[in-house]
Amino acid sequence: MAVDVGGTTMKGGLVGRDGALLYVERRVTPRAEGPERVIAAISAFVTDLSRPRSVGLDGGVLEPVAVGLAVPGLVTATHAVFSAAFGWRDVPVEAFTQVSLPVALGHDVRSAGEAELAYGTGSDVRTGSTGSDTRSGAGDVLYLPIGTGIAGAVVLSGSLYGGAAGWAGQIGHIPVWPDGVRCACGQRGCLAAYASASAIASRCGEDSAADVVARVTAGDARAVAVWNEAVEALSLALATYTLLLDPALVVIGGGLSLAGDTLIAPLRDRLPTLLTFRHPPALRVSALGVHAGLLGAGLLGWRAQEDHL
Amino acid sequence: MAVDVGGTTMKGGLVGRDGALLYVERRVTPRAEGPERVIAAISAFVTDLSRPRSVGLDGGVLEPVAVGLAVPGLVTATHAVFSAAFGWRDVPVEAFTQVSLPVALGHDVRSAGEAELAYGTGSDVRTGSTGSDTRSGAGDVLYLPIGTGIAGAVVLSGSLYGGAAGWAGQIGHIPVWPDGVRCACGQRGCLAAYASASAIASRCGEDSAADVVARVTAGDARAVAVWNEAVEALSLALATYTLLLDPALVVIGGGLSLAGDTLIAPLRDRLPTLLTFRHPPALRVSALGVHAGLLGAGLLGWRAQEDHL
Repeated sequence: MAVDVGGTTMKGGLVGRDGALLYVERRVTPRAEGPERVIAAISAFVTDLSRPRSVGLDGGVLEPVAVGLAVPGLVTATHAVFSAAFGWRDVPVEAFTQVSLPVALGHDVRSAGEAELAYGTGSDVRTGSTGSDTRSGAGDVLYLPIGTGIAGAVVLSGSLYGGAAGWAGQIGHIPVWPDGVRCACGQRGCLAAYASASAIASRCGEDSAADVVARVTAGDARAVAVWNEAVEALSLALATYTLLLDPALVVIGGGLSLAGDTLIAPLRDRLPTLLTFRHPPALRVSALGVHAGLLGAGLLGWRAQEDHL
Repeated sequence: MAVDVGGTTMKGGLVGRDGALLYVERRVTPRAEGPERVIAAISAFVTDLSRPRSVGLDGGVLEPVAVGLAVPGLVTATHAVFSAAFGWRDVPVEAFTQVSLPVALGHDVRSAGEAELAYGTGSDVRTGSTGSDTRSGAGDVLYLPIGTGIAGAVVLSGSLYGGAAGWAGQIGHIPVWPDGVRCACGQRGCLAAYASASAIASRCGEDSAADVVARVTAGDARAVAVWNEAVEALSLALATYTLLLDPALVVIGGGLSLAGDTLIAPLRDRLPTLLTFRHPPALRVSALGVHAGLLGAGLLGWRAQEDHL
């Protein structure tokens, strides 16, 4: 069983060992009601998903064997340490589930990156076919899901990189404009304060980034200004990432990636102008889209089951 | 034999297989005279260093067996691809030497990082003794030599990371203030345009950053303003690096590190204020100082000799 906890919706489901999505259910994340209510909602979701369930046309009954739980923020194997979106600190994994199944807690974005590596866009890069003769193609990829927040799965030489304490990839909170707007994390000018789906929506007075995209397409001035600023912030962050880590490929996922060329085309225009002495990496939209997180939580669950054997 | 080509001086010397510095000579880098003159000066230096030379009190004669050459900018094993400081593009390694010894070309900062890993500050981090219980201590270190330019040696899990095409670590050209001053590389607001030793000196009308440090110590208003801006730029870049890569340690080297506490103390004050939801990495001054590059070039030379056997 897998649960991917996003800032707006929680996706829960059953994921086969081969990555097949056998059952998917969405519930609203009660973020506005505070961290305790979110934790209780996750636990209730896990309990409901743990019941045997018949799926598919043949009506076969599936019984979950483990829980994979992907959450945003700073996460260790034992604790959800911090999330600006949820306002929680040091929540032990046990708080999220009351069922007697093995459970694995993971970072939503790094888990999604694992799923992309296993099933999605960029798996070709691991074997050297990036289409550019200056690339070693050893799997140097940034997976960048953009949703309520922004974090990156940093894939170096084909493996996810976690950092000294497992906190690598917090690209959503790098200061793109140091004197810029205040972010929910307490810092100033963070990428996520300009380019997360939630920031884009709220800066336009909309409920969702999809509404903003519709206004951008219609030529609405305020929406275009907000969108351009988001694209510029993303371009600056990707220029910085490229200069530091020289990736062969950046894969953009999450809800905002559903904007497709409205997002990718201006990014492909702007990024090279910020890199005067080197080529930009290739930019693609994730093939797994909004399901990457759930598939990644599924990988966590199967790992919990294996560790339990 | 080792040559470390800096923007102001070239350091050449003989380095033993154990990292002992057996002979060191400095020459001015004729940077103002253009890239051809710099290349010719390097070649002449290599030729002079290749002659048998008696060193030490016992007058033993040393005969170099290989050439290790460390240069700044974008570098591959076969070409000095680009340097903003020198204005060269795609210089083949053969252009730098006319002697008939095996030669290895490398990036000055990554080579210096190799030397730091082999002999210097932070080698303890590889074995897990970082003094903090939240660190895995697997050798996640940024070596940041600050001289004429700024680049970083990105050490991840104990190994230098080069990126997809070997161009990782260009932290000197990340945009810390996107609307800031124009950098020699053609981009705007680069870290190096505020915090390299050469930028600090020229912004104060001095020949060297050491002169600026003296004025800072004396309380000169212009020097203090330039210095504070350099410290802020470095703090922003280190905050960004920390959020992306979660290092356990940052080691500052190069000429500017000779400023010691004048540099490190305000960095230690500012960096935590830019990281609201996580701890900053430890900050130290390099133990190898300005010799890290030469020792790194020595490692390159010994590698060339081994590859030649």
